[in-house]
Amino acid sequence: MMLRTRRIPLDTLRENVAVLASNCAALRPEAFQAFKRLEIQHDGRSIVASLDICHDHSMVGPDEIGLTEPAFRRMGLPEGSTVTIAPARSPQSLDYVRTKIGGETLNRHQIEAIIHDIVGYRYSDMEIAAFLVACAGFLSTDELLDLTRAMASAGNSLVWDAPMVVDKHCIGGIPGNRTSMIVVPIVAAHGLTIPKTSSRAITSPAGTADTMEILARVDLTTEEMRAVVGECNGCLVWGGHVNLSPADDILIGVERPLNLDTREQMVASIMSKKKSAGSTHLVVDIPLGPTAKVRDAGEAMRLRKLFEFVADRIGLHVEVMVTDGAQPVGRGIGPVLEARDVMAVLANDAAAPADLREKSLRLAARVIESDAAVRGGTGYDRARELLDSGAAMTVMQKIIAAQGRAPAAPPPGPLTADVLAHADGIVASVDCLRIAQLARLAGAPLDRGAGLDILKRVGDKVEAGEPLYRIYSAGESHFDFAVDAAEQANGFALAGLGGMSGGAR
Amino acid sequence: MMLRTRRIPLDTLRENVAVLASNCAALRPEAFQAFKRLEIQHDGRSIVASLDICHDHSMVGPDEIGLTEPAFRRMGLPEGSTVTIAPARSPQSLDYVRTKIGGETLNRHQIEAIIHDIVGYRYSDMEIAAFLVACAGFLSTDELLDLTRAMASAGNSLVWDAPMVVDKHCIGGIPGNRTSMIVVPIVAAHGLTIPKTSSRAITSPAGTADTMEILARVDLTTEEMRAVVGECNGCLVWGGHVNLSPADDILIGVERPLNLDTREQMVASIMSKKKSAGSTHLVVDIPLGPTAKVRDAGEAMRLRKLFEFVADRIGLHVEVMVTDGAQPVGRGIGPVLEARDVMAVLANDAAAPADLREKSLRLAARVIESDAAVRGGTGYDRARELLDSGAAMTVMQKIIAAQGRAPAAPPPGPLTADVLAHADGIVASVDCLRIAQLARLAGAPLDRGAGLDILKRVGDKVEAGEPLYRIYSAGESHFDFAVDAAEQANGFALAGLGGMSGGAR
Repeated sequence: MMLRTRRIPLDTLRENVAVLASNCAALRPEAFQAFKRLEIQHDGRSIVASLDICHDHSMVGPDEIGLTEPAFRRMGLPEGSTVTIAPARSPQSLDYVRTKIGGETLNRHQIEAIIHDIVGYRYSDMEIAAFLVACAGFLSTDELLDLTRAMASAGNSLVWDAPMVVDKHCIGGIPGNRTSMIVVPIVAAHGLTIPKTSSRAITSPAGTADTMEILARVDLTTEEMRAVVGECNGCLVWGGHVNLSPADDILIGVERPLNLDTREQMVASIMSKKKSAGSTHLVVDIPLGPTAKVRDAGEAMRLRKLFEFVADRIGLHVEVMVTDGAQPVGRGIGPVLEARDVMAVLANDAAAPADLREKSLRLAARVIESDAAVRGGTGYDRARELLDSGAAMTVMQKIIAAQGRAPAAPPPGPLTADVLAHADGIVASVDCLRIAQLARLAGAPLDRGAGLDILKRVGDKVEAGEPLYRIYSAGESHFDFAVDAAEQANGFALAGLGGMSGGAR
Repeated sequence: MMLRTRRIPLDTLRENVAVLASNCAALRPEAFQAFKRLEIQHDGRSIVASLDICHDHSMVGPDEIGLTEPAFRRMGLPEGSTVTIAPARSPQSLDYVRTKIGGETLNRHQIEAIIHDIVGYRYSDMEIAAFLVACAGFLSTDELLDLTRAMASAGNSLVWDAPMVVDKHCIGGIPGNRTSMIVVPIVAAHGLTIPKTSSRAITSPAGTADTMEILARVDLTTEEMRAVVGECNGCLVWGGHVNLSPADDILIGVERPLNLDTREQMVASIMSKKKSAGSTHLVVDIPLGPTAKVRDAGEAMRLRKLFEFVADRIGLHVEVMVTDGAQPVGRGIGPVLEARDVMAVLANDAAAPADLREKSLRLAARVIESDAAVRGGTGYDRARELLDSGAAMTVMQKIIAAQGRAPAAPPPGPLTADVLAHADGIVASVDCLRIAQLARLAGAPLDRGAGLDILKRVGDKVEAGEPLYRIYSAGESHFDFAVDAAEQANGFALAGLGGMSGGAR
């Protein structure tokens, strides 16, 4: 029962999907659907795929098997290769997932087996969701630790010959918060090794990797990354390419659309990546605010303790900073607009967003203070000195050149619309989720020049008709989506002037 | 931003999948993937779909949107119609799913909203899995009741003018257990109204609807079903066609592949369907055995109480029977083989499987005893009289004729292989799950003549080389799958003769 492979030019994202013709010569394709998953074999190599049935025999013939893009890529054979298929046995680790659903805790062996199968693409999205939801219900600290270790072991590990490898990480959720691109050059200019790997946006309008890509190549190999760090003390690359935590990449791809962001999963995700990346000292930024991921001080403290618990046990020194997450940081939201802000801060431009500069300095200070040679309490001054003197910009330019300078990015826009205040008042709050959604609707991060420029901040006085922010889009459809959505809910809440001045009229 | 629809001949099962070209003229398709779901609109009508991206512009052009089979069918427009698309807002009820994941209980309104959106195909499979797993963790009895009611209200409801409408239902899991096709004609011959709706197999080798289809049409409309019941007192139709519980059909489609079969979901599923079907009296069969769905007496009792709790509150009289689920019932497994057994029992054929006959009589007795006119304790005699006299067979033939007699079914096979005992011994146990899996691998239920004939039962003495069961397949591939799998694990455990006789030599 040999079938010839045929490439189906459909991108089904994470999931391997195979396609059999409804008149398949070898077997009744519907029969396989009960087993959910099909094992496709060729010469000792195999992948597991879900199955769709095709009724158009010009797409897939009776003696063919169609492989959608991820399946074709992972199978790694030329089109027309002969393969055999068999019902894939359900991975045994799914029994452990069911054990977890049943309310029991899992041991290290069981958690390792689950992560192993997830990384081997043996779980469907549905099965991954089941695992995540079961863990979201309850995860013991031992399970969390085992999960972190299993995730860290599932990918590549970087080893540096520096005695200290520092890093910073933000748990995310705050649009525009592009501090890494300022902290890394400051810290590298100070002389510490800071090989920063970042993510691309999944549901946000930009990840640090997307924004850095406006300036430089970010899909470096491990060797290229080493060379850049050797030359510059630091780098700003995309973590996905160096494959530090493939399990996390897969889990996040299901967590984000499901909007499942539990403390435990967040800690396992971040700590497993830092462990693989070879970090020894980490500063974690937890923004706290009404529309941030962490919404009250108690929760921030519990999360801090969880980071500390895991860090202590995997041999990583962690410092947690709870920061102001009440509103977006900086002005631009979206790759081009954020890159502009970052470079303005590094250039000591008077018009650079002060909040982005200040927050970056505070984070850089904490990282720098992990250097034994720095006198306690002088980290901030040192960071500011490196920024103000242009030393940080020099390092940033060196990193950009070493990673490979990007061709000129598109300008912001070109379609723009200002979203206006409906009434006089004072900005009482800005909804980070809504602002991120609007920037995303405008086309960010794929339209690199799309996004928002935030023009008013919490506490600012505004008059009716004054712009709160500006929308930038590259295409009519996205422009219309974002403008329509902003009309429905613009994310800004204004308080009446009377109310804000204490009730006096 | 109008796109023309194009039909993509891919069957993606439950899930609506739309396809946009990577060079889509209207927008950047990748941007939509963050929102997961796309709303496709035309003239007030709309569906929600997941998105794949297509790199072959002959499959989907830049001004087109591809709709896979379920999406095309549900959109209900001719190919080439113009539609508009917009990012689908995540259904609000997903917030309730997250509430549930967070460990809180849901109120009636929240549960209704979730079921409403699931029935509207506004949930992805991943999201359905998240809901099911969250419920599997913990569901209060009030939530169970609300879920049952919400599922019952989401579909059609049948109203009968009989004062009493009886039914029987087995929770499943036992191969070959085709009692409904014997109970219905006996009960109908007695004169009670028994409009039986059954399911097709999802992961089992045959559902009652699949087996009945060997003999008669089962995809009757509600009107046709009414006519058959009017004429015969009973029917045996496929429940999916009369759409009694579309929510359940969708949930089961995710539960089964995930192998998530919690007590609460089972009760909600069964009771919602019976409520919609207009039943007033229901006998529930709970097979108990080491490889059955219910594996110990305590669990059977808890399940019984859950059925009683819900039945009392939705106004349904329920009787629960715990039956022997230690092994398959009858001889044949797979549609044609099971239909043969059923007709042999109804024909009082001496070679008919005695266990299938006996179990059917006991179930029919319990149903008949719900008739006030029957003297307590005489139900079994009445059932046996109706079976032995041929009255049940006469009604079965009448039901077959009324539903529409099927064309002659294929014979079993034609490829067969006997699976042999490796040693002398006594059959100690038969693994129902493995036997079902082997029949499924052999091609059942799609190859209607495929399946197994069980030749030995628990307690039977066997000699090495004697056949335990026979595999039937219609095609080489499936035959090989089943034979190979039976060689790996044949599902039969034999005890040494010494061991079974109490340790004496």
